[in-house]
Amino acid sequence: MSGKIKILWINPVGNDNAFDEHIKRILESVKRSDVTVDVTHLAKGPKQLEYWSNESVILVDLFKSIYEAEQKNYDAVVIGCFGDPGLRGARELVKIPVIGSGEACMHVASTLGHKFSILASEKKAISLLEDLVYTYGLEKKLASIRVVDFTPVRMLEEPQKLQAAASSEARKAVEEDNAEVIILGCTCESGFMRELMTELAVPVIDVVVVSFKYAEMLADLYRNTGLSHSKIYGYKSPPEDELFLRYI
Amino acid sequence: MSGKIKILWINPVGNDNAFDEHIKRILESVKRSDVTVDVTHLAKGPKQLEYWSNESVILVDLFKSIYEAEQKNYDAVVIGCFGDPGLRGARELVKIPVIGSGEACMHVASTLGHKFSILASEKKAISLLEDLVYTYGLEKKLASIRVVDFTPVRMLEEPQKLQAAASSEARKAVEEDNAEVIILGCTCESGFMRELMTELAVPVIDVVVVSFKYAEMLADLYRNTGLSHSKIYGYKSPPEDELFLRYI
Amino acid sequence: MSGKIKILWINPVGNDNAFDEHIKRILESVKRSDVTVDVTHLAKGPKQLEYWSNESVILVDLFKSIYEAEQKNYDAVVIGCFGDPGLRGARELVKIPVIGSGEACMHVASTLGHKFSILASEKKAISLLEDLVYTYGLEKKLASIRVVDFTPVRMLEEPQKLQAAASSEARKAVEEDNAEVIILGCTCESGFMRELMTELAVPVIDVVVVSFKYAEMLADLYRNTGLSHSKIYGYKSPPEDELFLRYI
Amino acid sequence: MSGKIKILWINPVGNDNAFDEHIKRILESVKRSDVTVDVTHLAKGPKQLEYWSNESVILVDLFKSIYEAEQKNYDAVVIGCFGDPGLRGARELVKIPVIGSGEACMHVASTLGHKFSILASEKKAISLLEDLVYTYGLEKKLASIRVVDFTPVRMLEEPQKLQAAASSEARKAVEEDNAEVIILGCTCESGFMRELMTELAVPVIDVVVVSFKYAEMLADLYRNTGLSHSKIYGYKSPPEDELFLRYI
Amino acid sequence: MSGKIKILWINPVGNDNAFDEHIKRILESVKRSDVTVDVTHLAKGPKQLEYWSNESVILVDLFKSIYEAEQKNYDAVVIGCFGDPGLRGARELVKIPVIGSGEACMHVASTLGHKFSILASEKKAISLLEDLVYTYGLEKKLASIRVVDFTPVRMLEEPQKLQAAASSEARKAVEEDNAEVIILGCTCESGFMRELMTELAVPVIDVVVVSFKYAEMLADLYRNTGLSHSKIYGYKSPPEDELFLRYI
Amino acid sequence: MSGKIKILWINPVGNDNAFDEHIKRILESVKRSDVTVDVTHLAKGPKQLEYWSNESVILVDLFKSIYEAEQKNYDAVVIGCFGDPGLRGARELVKIPVIGSGEACMHVASTLGHKFSILASEKKAISLLEDLVYTYGLEKKLASIRVVDFTPVRMLEEPQKLQAAASSEARKAVEEDNAEVIILGCTCESGFMRELMTELAVPVIDVVVVSFKYAEMLADLYRNTGLSHSKIYGYKSPPEDELFLRYI
Repeated sequence: MSGKIKILWINPVGNDNAFDEHIKRILESVKRSDVTVDVTHLAKGPKQLEYWSNESVILVDLFKSIYEAEQKNYDAVVIGCFGDPGLRGARELVKIPVIGSGEACMHVASTLGHKFSILASEKKAISLLEDLVYTYGLEKKLASIRVVDFTPVRMLEEPQKLQAAASSEARKAVEEDNAEVIILGCTCESGFMRELMTELAVPVIDVVVVSFKYAEMLADLYRNTGLSHSKIYGYKSPPEDELFLRYI
Repeated sequence: MSGKIKILWINPVGNDNAFDEHIKRILESVKRSDVTVDVTHLAKGPKQLEYWSNESVILVDLFKSIYEAEQKNYDAVVIGCFGDPGLRGARELVKIPVIGSGEACMHVASTLGHKFSILASEKKAISLLEDLVYTYGLEKKLASIRVVDFTPVRMLEEPQKLQAAASSEARKAVEEDNAEVIILGCTCESGFMRELMTELAVPVIDVVVVSFKYAEMLADLYRNTGLSHSKIYGYKSPPEDELFLRYI
Repeated sequence: MSGKIKILWINPVGNDNAFDEHIKRILESVKRSDVTVDVTHLAKGPKQLEYWSNESVILVDLFKSIYEAEQKNYDAVVIGCFGDPGLRGARELVKIPVIGSGEACMHVASTLGHKFSILASEKKAISLLEDLVYTYGLEKKLASIRVVDFTPVRMLEEPQKLQAAASSEARKAVEEDNAEVIILGCTCESGFMRELMTELAVPVIDVVVVSFKYAEMLADLYRNTGLSHSKIYGYKSPPEDELFLRYI
Repeated sequence: MSGKIKILWINPVGNDNAFDEHIKRILESVKRSDVTVDVTHLAKGPKQLEYWSNESVILVDLFKSIYEAEQKNYDAVVIGCFGDPGLRGARELVKIPVIGSGEACMHVASTLGHKFSILASEKKAISLLEDLVYTYGLEKKLASIRVVDFTPVRMLEEPQKLQAAASSEARKAVEEDNAEVIILGCTCESGFMRELMTELAVPVIDVVVVSFKYAEMLADLYRNTGLSHSKIYGYKSPPEDELFLRYI
Repeated sequence: MSGKIKILWINPVGNDNAFDEHIKRILESVKRSDVTVDVTHLAKGPKQLEYWSNESVILVDLFKSIYEAEQKNYDAVVIGCFGDPGLRGARELVKIPVIGSGEACMHVASTLGHKFSILASEKKAISLLEDLVYTYGLEKKLASIRVVDFTPVRMLEEPQKLQAAASSEARKAVEEDNAEVIILGCTCESGFMRELMTELAVPVIDVVVVSFKYAEMLADLYRNTGLSHSKIYGYKSPPEDELFLRYI
Repeated sequence: MSGKIKILWINPVGNDNAFDEHIKRILESVKRSDVTVDVTHLAKGPKQLEYWSNESVILVDLFKSIYEAEQKNYDAVVIGCFGDPGLRGARELVKIPVIGSGEACMHVASTLGHKFSILASEKKAISLLEDLVYTYGLEKKLASIRVVDFTPVRMLEEPQKLQAAASSEARKAVEEDNAEVIILGCTCESGFMRELMTELAVPVIDVVVVSFKYAEMLADLYRNTGLSHSKIYGYKSPPEDELFLRYI
């Protein structure tokens, strides 16, 4: 239990190393000095998670990564996608905190202003995000969901166009929907929160940054006090003979 | 488009043929004369779905079954588990109606009385079911969730004890929680709705029976008018190169 | 209990036979082969139900029709108006399923997409419809209520203009309100759901068609299993000496 | 517009004069000195309104009374039943304020404490009352609905037993449900609010008293300023040729 | 307890006498003949309450005024600011009814139409008002909050421009947001409700007028029956040694 | 901006130094090594905040402390009372993060399980806490509010009895209300979260510990990225001439 706090960030997609390195650079620039972070991705799977049906191809690998992370003494794991794929299943499998990027950022945003708007990738994502908001019980904090109309992959390819689109939609969210806080609702919309805050003069949540800081806090609390997610009822662990690993 | 309406009932678990035959007997006893039904299960997987983490091991096979069902000219598919695993992903993959047992039964129950209670398997299921109720927008119709305290597997092994427990909890739901309708919230709590209705004098929803009749209705509407679930936004189909089959 | 399933469709207005025949043609074109349907209207009353105050002049005749329908061995009755006049009172009077067109269609729409929009006749109807949505507990499924700005009577007189207006408002509901499903919120907006679905590529619910198919399902379930609306608490039958027939 | 404010209290049931006189005595004991009140009932109809189906036999007479009340220069009308039968239809027909006993008392109760409990007649009434609470948008103010288990008619026959039952249920509402305000949810539970307040030390709302005082306020505002219910959209008046009187 | 009903209206700001006189003129023009009203303000404090932080400088004086009002035999007190500063604390301190202008007017508006819109001073006020609406449990009755974009002080300086702005925003609330009732959401937007009602043909609530009439009703009920806000749980009085006066 | 992160914890009561030292010991035992914390209290005021009316006597001093904290280069301030007195006003006054103990802990609890229960001091606190839950938009995450029936002052005097009462109520919350997470809803219920977690096997939130760790996270984010609460609309700063300091 001594030594640095170890956090694993998992990109739950089949990306290449370049994206991991991009994320790692962002995390290194904001992390606490008593924390180390590793960034990883899945062996296979799509490069983006726009379709619910693609959860099917990532969940086994994601759960294996998280299950092993606990055995490797990580203090917390972050599922690095705003849609929080596999969040509840993952929490069944381990005792260490599992952070959903969407859940963490929506709750932090709720403590920074009256209402937040989410800038989603495309209209495809709206029903998924609204369902998350309902499940997290935060519908009263939601000003609006607006779309930048970029696929996650294109976000990475055209960062300047993305930033311009995000800025434009964020402004509308503030002026027309009365949003007081903006969430950049995709881990690929990362790296320009400071610029947007300067430009718009409202808090802008970079999901990579904020969910990681939330993970640091929970990892620290877990080490210090044992606090983590509940293991009664909803996140109860399966018995050995019903563990997902038995069926693959 | 001529000939009988064909419906596929999928038990999204790795059960043996005996359970399929049990379900088929129930379906044959209530089906329309112009409908044929096939019952199938997955090649592998747990015998029950009490843990979110086990969705990881069934989704690929479930989606393949549903994807192929459309190619085999089925008119509708039922996911035979009250927790509706994979429902939204499945609807991305096909145009034919995909019926979630939980969703269909909660909506039908809503049209039969002021509030319904769900008799769930165990306390483990409560948060999953409440999340479904929130996602389906039906919290005002929910009187309570009560548990019979049987695993699904034990439900099949001790049907008489199950029926006694269900009767006892249903009575409390009616008298203490003012439920007007009872949902037997697991496909393994099937086969005794008539007995319970006689005993309790309130509507009792056998999930196998009612979700299948709902599937008949939607299959018929689909054939007659083309009506099915929406393919815009939430259930938009993935392009070929993002289809889950590409990644397995 | 043998023989065909018999369903009675009641137009709860004082229309002439032409409207009954129009509705009957639509029902005949979609009904199951093991179902017979009769269409009727009230002896007196307004031709449209835009005003709550006019419920006063139709309820007695409506309830008599429904009360007698059970005695004539109908298996289910449909109240053919999207505002569901008299729905709860009617369910007190009989054991056979009584289908409210509005209630049935809103619940079916909820199972076909993330959110639905209702195309109402006029702004007059909005508060009535929102109250129904609240009573049915479906506010989270409602994208918007938009109006075509036709009285029901004019809908029947100018069907092509109506269809053009419905198409235009439906498109706005999809594009501006993110509706995934459209409900044509009046039984007079009937007969062109296929054309609208082709044009808009989203599910469009013709209230006449879908509430009738829902009635077939419930009538079938009632015959097969005895399932119908609850007779405890909310829909409890009055004793003989408090029956409405005693007071007219 | 000069002279005393005139208010009409309508018992929307076919009671005898004794009940009118009972109500009148209560109203006379609390009314303003610049107000006169008349109490009336319907020519026919049940003595109590426990069944939705019985609204059918009272609405025409109720609407005629209200329609004529405006012509007779009453400044406001109260519908003297906690279930608010015909409230919305009545508001279409006149410009003078129409007070629903249930609506007025629930809103006043909301300004007197954090949450209120309603003491209803029987379990039959719960779904009707919950629907009212939803329609009025007050679900967050409702602590509970409890029943005294008396029909309205029996309430009048056994006032002392009623008072004891009300006291006992009110105490449970305060202690177990954390209610801060009690509503005696039937106009037949009238005449003992002071005794209950002394006994329980919480506000107790006698529906006859409080809805009448609310009517005085609205009648006064209407005379002084012209303020009354809205005549746009929801309560828009029917044109002459669609008035309910045309169809009876 | 005999003699006229005495009501105290407190402007919870440090205004000069001119504003008190303006309010008094309005109140005198609408008050009951059996009521006397006094209008007062605080010895110090800002001229308007746009900032939560300024509640700190008014609460002690406001509470002293209300505490002393009871001792001076006032029958009710009105806190004359739509934001209801100190409402809950004040109710702890006295038994006489304490009326919050915002709370009273939102509940009255709820009984006059399907939904109301509030015309607020500036965007600054929106989150405060939405929090009030949530706390009062009235979100379903709210059509929209629109702003006239005047500070309260400027409202008093430029009454004609204010009235024009209010008229314009009210019209948009009715036409675009389907509001059926308008609340002029600041006590400085007072004195032109009749003009606006004539112009717009919808109910317009002048907060000064309506909250005062509500106070008359509660004061009368308190005198006649003892009914006032609850003194159990939420508004329980502090014991002598925890009274705020002990700490100043 | 270099050097350790400085956080100020304010006990918004007029306690003596012993309580500050008690809180400081707890904070020192969990704080990050790169953080320093100061604990302070107000010059005057009650020892506990059970009454809304007592907010009046603490807000000016609380706001002064927070206003000065920013000038003294603190990176964040915590208002050390679960009822979050003055939270919104404080955020108007400064740019540095202001943490409300209640708000922070309810949001963190929401990310640790399906529903949380709050163990409040006394029934007096229930309406205040429910209003907070509504304002924060978290009603769907609340399993129940239960009371230990200790005043805050007595909590400090009888810590062992308190712990026994908390343990007993927490167990009921888990078993009867299906809570998955427990919040010890008063800063005086601090110092035994580990014992309770061992005993009950569910997450237990010590408000002092968790809100402080949340403050560390926000202070760090503020330093690193500038992220803090929004200064548009709801928390907009008053202009110099409307600052609360001008009026005292």
